[in-house]
Parts: sequence; structure tokens; C-alpha cells
Amino acid sequence: MSVRETLAGSPDVRRTNLAVLLRHLHLDGAMRRAELTDRSGLTRSTVAGLVGELGRLGAVEQTAASTTSTAGTPTRGRPSPVVRPCPLGVQVLAAEVRVDQVEVALVGLGGTVLHRDSRPLPDPSPEPTADLVARSVADLAHAAPGRVLGLGVAVPGVTRHRDGAVRFAPNLSWRDVSFGRMLSDRLPGTDVRVVNDGDAGVLAEHLRGVARGCDDVVFVEGEVGVGSGVVVDGKPLVGAGGYAGELGHIAVAGLGGRRCRCGSDGCWETEIGLDAVARALGLGPDASRRAVVDALRTAGDEEVRRLEPVARHLGAGLATVVNIFNPSLVVLGGLLRELYPCVAAEVRRTMVRGALAAPVEQVRLALPELGDDAVLLGAAEAVWQRVLLDPVAALGG
Amino acid sequence: MSVRETLAGSPDVRRTNLAVLLRHLHLDGAMRRAELTDRSGLTRSTVAGLVGELGRLGAVEQTAASTTSTAGTPTRGRPSPVVRPCPLGVQVLAAEVRVDQVEVALVGLGGTVLHRDSRPLPDPSPEPTADLVARSVADLAHAAPGRVLGLGVAVPGVTRHRDGAVRFAPNLSWRDVSFGRMLSDRLPGTDVRVVNDGDAGVLAEHLRGVARGCDDVVFVEGEVGVGSGVVVDGKPLVGAGGYAGELGHIAVAGLGGRRCRCGSDGCWETEIGLDAVARALGLGPDASRRAVVDALRTAGDEEVRRLEPVARHLGAGLATVVNIFNPSLVVLGGLLRELYPCVAAEVRRTMVRGALAAPVEQVRLALPELGDDAVLLGAAEAVWQRVLLDPVAALGG
Repeated sequence: MSVRETLAGSPDVRRTNLAVLLRHLHLDGAMRRAELTDRSGLTRSTVAGLVGELGRLGAVEQTAASTTSTAGTPTRGRPSPVVRPCPLGVQVLAAEVRVDQVEVALVGLGGTVLHRDSRPLPDPSPEPTADLVARSVADLAHAAPGRVLGLGVAVPGVTRHRDGAVRFAPNLSWRDVSFGRMLSDRLPGTDVRVVNDGDAGVLAEHLRGVARGCDDVVFVEGEVGVGSGVVVDGKPLVGAGGYAGELGHIAVAGLGGRRCRCGSDGCWETEIGLDAVARALGLGPDASRRAVVDALRTAGDEEVRRLEPVARHLGAGLATVVNIFNPSLVVLGGLLRELYPCVAAEVRRTMVRGALAAPVEQVRLALPELGDDAVLLGAAEAVWQRVLLDPVAALGG
Repeated sequence: MSVRETLAGSPDVRRTNLAVLLRHLHLDGAMRRAELTDRSGLTRSTVAGLVGELGRLGAVEQTAASTTSTAGTPTRGRPSPVVRPCPLGVQVLAAEVRVDQVEVALVGLGGTVLHRDSRPLPDPSPEPTADLVARSVADLAHAAPGRVLGLGVAVPGVTRHRDGAVRFAPNLSWRDVSFGRMLSDRLPGTDVRVVNDGDAGVLAEHLRGVARGCDDVVFVEGEVGVGSGVVVDGKPLVGAGGYAGELGHIAVAGLGGRRCRCGSDGCWETEIGLDAVARALGLGPDASRRAVVDALRTAGDEEVRRLEPVARHLGAGLATVVNIFNPSLVVLGGLLRELYPCVAAEVRRTMVRGALAAPVEQVRLALPELGDDAVLLGAAEAVWQRVLLDPVAALGG
């Protein structure tokens, strides 16, 4: 008899067990109650009781099992009902602030995107941005079919873990913006969590994307700047204040590099960000993201040759990442999804040359499975993670 | 009644509780049994039984309490006996392989160094090194007053976690050396753990030194190369294969930097290691460590000025470390203990300029509290950590 089972009747253990079951359902979707029993190591009757409680909280539903298994063969004995998360029962709001637009979504339990909207951000200064985010998510919340448990917002900046203050977002020109409080003021009663965009991206890819099952993952997203997030031993890298994992400002070009918006020289983001790619392609400094993506998708030999310096800086930064984190997977998101396939050989050559042999032979480079949704889904997960810690408290059961 | 208490009678929980008590005693030394009771949250009678069992295993001893408290004032009620770890009862062996010498020690429970020896290493190739380490620790084991539970060896190289193979130790000219197996062959029946020197250093400073109580710590040791280790959220950074935390090969000098023994250019260790410091001081490429230390200790204005480029590269690397890990503490060991005080202002200036404001305002730079013993004590802790996971299994109780 397991420790967990022995105390299944005590209120604390019951809450913990509810959380365990809900986590399985949120991350892996519908499954037979028998499988939940196997995974949790609890007894059948305990699981039946807990699933009933999650049903009363509106989080899951059970459907009578058919007498054939999912593989179509007849099952033996009494068939086990199928339990599934209820995306229409409980939801969270998610937002992603980009340099020129705001993405918002209503995400149901299980990670289902129920609604999604993209709005242009003509003025990215803090007050108008907070207004636009608050207005957009309020519209979604108004139309939500179930209970809305909170709002997760991803921003392209250095964000304090404790209160969601954005300490520095060079590409929005923000410095010390109490963005979490600004949103809470506009959305009374809503639990707001503000997170770094790279941290959101790695969380989503780790829980639901290409990095599933990998314990040591680095996510690098190239846009105007370079966002990044790291999972170490299965957990997000946070640091003393929540600022860890900022890879955009590692030095890759030495003292001769370009001046970065952070004040230093030769940072990774000045050498592989949107401007650097546009410059390499000869598109001029004001090229839109759209134009750069189109040029990358249609790149021929001449363009690939012109991208070589960018590829080398991407590889050099990856070498540092590999030496420091010894990750099993590096996920290349944002603009790098388009750039990397063009110049993969040169990137890998530079990375292998610059990194130590032992860690570089363990690393795989991959594109995000969630595509452009990684950051938005990760912002939602920042709220779900809190809900899953104690579903009874979050759902008011 | 706590979960732990409810099941105090079950064998698994008993082993876990023994481990909890022994960890307190190993890391914090002698204390009253009443304090162990407070810290563990167990009942007085449970703690008394467990301490008795640890005593029978030879790990701790109890002394009848005096009727005055440690503060000298009379205590009320029946005084609580004092429990202390038994360094003479159980020990581990520790070794540190350096470029030209081997340090060995016999370390008792509680971290007490019982014997210590330093032997020159005229030929640092693998077989002679393994011979010297094995002979040296066998001498110590022979004279050990208690039971010897294993050997921890720190090496200046990239070391595989699983089996202690040294994949690459550029300053020993080792590549793919099965050092763990070579030592096991020479010391039959001894549990051997081979770890990276920086990983050992950060572990010791985190458990017993200046980084005690800090959850996010980076240890940087400048010698011929730069060793390093990282603690993230209270746990050692390991990575997919045990290679993580290698900071000596982050690029700080860009493409114009010196060729590093790793094959890349402008690595941190080529710019702040022994050779770089000797060169800056005008001591020539063959200067001994001793000569460099003496020159640093007596450095005047002229020497400090000559060290400025080294100081700037130290600061630039620290900026990257700060951006990536957001540590609350960076410990500067080895030669940096002598270098940093000479050039602290320039190092800090470069670090602050190169790092993001949010993480840099949270970081403190410090010298190791354990001095030159950090790596050796950390090698011992690599064995103690295994013992503390399950003292009953390790002590054969």
C-alpha cells in the first residue's frame, strides 16, 4: 500500500490526488478511468470518487464506455468509462504582447484554444498596451462559455517573477513598467500573471510540443530581439528574481559587434534578429517581418550565401548554449523557424566547431511543434500551472 | 499529525526519516536532540529511536546533556542530550586532480578533514594519474579509523555523470578517458565517483561555504583553465549527460580572440586563465602559479593597469553569467581569489555595463569561504550525497 493510498481519506491528500489526476487529463487529454488508476497508483474506487469530484467542479466529464476498446477489439470485464477534460467548463485567458500587435486567446482545460484574436498595436507604450490587452481579453471573457480562472500575459522583456513587473523590454522601449498591476487595475478580480515570452515558449513546447519528455531544453525565438527560455531537469530556469534564461544578450561578436539596445555590443540578438537578417538579405533596415519571411521562404543560393554571417552567429551562440546547459534539445522558434532550414549546415558547422564535443553530440536542434502559438499557449500554462497546484482552491470546490 | 509521522513505523518512512536526521547532522554539526525534533517535525520518541539506530550504525554519538544550556543558563525540565556526527566512525576519501599535483583527503561525517596530503604529479597522463590517486587514497584508507564509504574524485574536465568517464580535459590532454573505471579497477570494492572540479566546488560552497542558503549560485575557478559549476534553485546544474555548467568556453573575445585548447577562439579561459594573467603581468608564458600569485599579492598601480584587459574579460564573462543564470551569488575561486581583489572596480564596471540591469542588481561577487579546499570537499560531498540518500543501505544497517 503506497503512502498516498494510506492517507487517501485525509483532506490534504485528497487535494493532492485531485491535482495529480487533473494534471494527467490537462496534459494528455481524454483517457479511460482505468488508465488514470494505473498512472496514479491509487485504487479504482478512490479514482472514481475523485473523478466525480472533478466533475462537480466542472473540470471533467465522464462518458459511458463502449464495449469495445479504443483499438476496436472487444474488452473483457466491465468497460472503464472515458474521462476527459472540459474545455467548455473552465478556461483561462492568454495574451502575447509583440512589438506591433497583441495576440489574445481563450484557452480551455486541456489546452484547447476556444477563441483567438490578433489586434494591431499602433502605440506600444505601456498604457495603450495595457488598455488594448485588457479590452481584448475582456471581450473574450464576456463570451466565455465557462468559468475563467485567470489571465497569463507574455511580454518580450525581462520580467520579475514576484509581481509581473517588466524591468526592461528594449524592443518596446519599456523600463520598469508595473505591467502586472496595470492589468490587475483594469481587470478587477482577475488573477493576472505576467511572464517573459521565452519562458512561456519553452513551457508550452515542454508540456505540449516538440520538447515533451525532454528534461533539458532551450527555446530560442528570433524576432526583433531574441527571446529565450530554459528548462533544467524538467523545471523552468527562473533564477533569483525570475530573470534567468536571457540568452539574447550573450556576446557572440566580441568588441567589434554592433551596439545593442541593451547598451552592450555584439549581443546575440543584434546579430541574428530581424534587422540582421533583413540586412544580410539586402532588404534595408525598415523591411517588415512579412517581407523577411517571404524572402527566406524563397531564398536561392545567392541569398543563402548572403545569410552565412548570420548563420555563423547563430551557430556561435548555440555553441555557448550547448556548453552551458548540455541540453538534449534546442527549439528554434519565431523567425528562426524560417531562417534555420535555409542555413542549417552552416549553423551546425559553427556550433560543432565552437562547442565541446561531449555536450554537442547530445543535442538535437528542432523547430517548435506549436508553431507561432507556443508563446501564447505558454502564457496560458502559466495560469494552468497555478490551477493544477490546487484545483480545489482554484475552482472553489 | 503530519504525513511523515503517521507512517513513522513503516520501513520506507523510517529510512527516509533516518536520512533527514543524518543530513541535518552532517551539514550543521552537533545539536541537541530537541532541535533535531523541531527541525524534523517528528515526535520526541521517534527521534530518540532513530538517533539510537544511527548510533548503532556508527554514524552519530549522543552525550548526556549538562543541566545548563549552551548559553550557560540553567535549562528547565529534563535537558536534551546532544547528538553529534561521528567523523571517526564513518569516512569518505576525496581526491582532486590538478595539472601538476594530486590532493587527497580523508573526510569524516560532518565534513571534518581527518587527513590531507598533496603529491606532485610529474606525468598527468591517465594511467600514471590513476596510479597516483589510487596509491594515495589507499594509504589514507589503510590508516582510516572507521568505515570508508567511497571515493570522490574531482577532475578538471568534462565528465560524464553516469560512469565518471572524462570526455575532455584539455589542460591534462585527456580525451575519452574511462577514469572512473580505471580507479575502480585499482580499488576493488570501493564506490568511486568522478566529478567535474567546478561542480565539486560549487557543491561544497553551497553546502558548507559562502553560498550556504543561496539557491542560485555560480562558482568560477580560474587556474590554467577555468573550472565552473552552477547551482540552480538549490540543485546542481547537470544537463542531459552531466556536462552542463562549462563556462570556461563561453566566447568573450569574439573572432579576434586567442585560440583555445578546445579548438575554438576567444574562450573565457584563454583570456582570464593563468597564462593570460602571467602575460598581462609580463611574467612570460612559463611563469609558475606560485610566481603569478606572488605578483598579484604585491601588485602596485602599474600591475593593476596592466591587468585591465584581463579584468575586462572577467567582467564581460560575468555579464553573460548574470544574464543567463540571474544568480544571487558568484563565487570567484582559484587564482581569481588573488586576481579579483586587485581589479574589482574594473571587473564590476565591465560586468554592470554588459549585463541587464535587473539581474545585475541582484548579484553579489564573493571569494570562497573554503579557500583552496572547496573542490576537494566537494568531491567528498559527491559521495556523502549518495550516503545521505539512504544511510541504511550505505552503512549496511
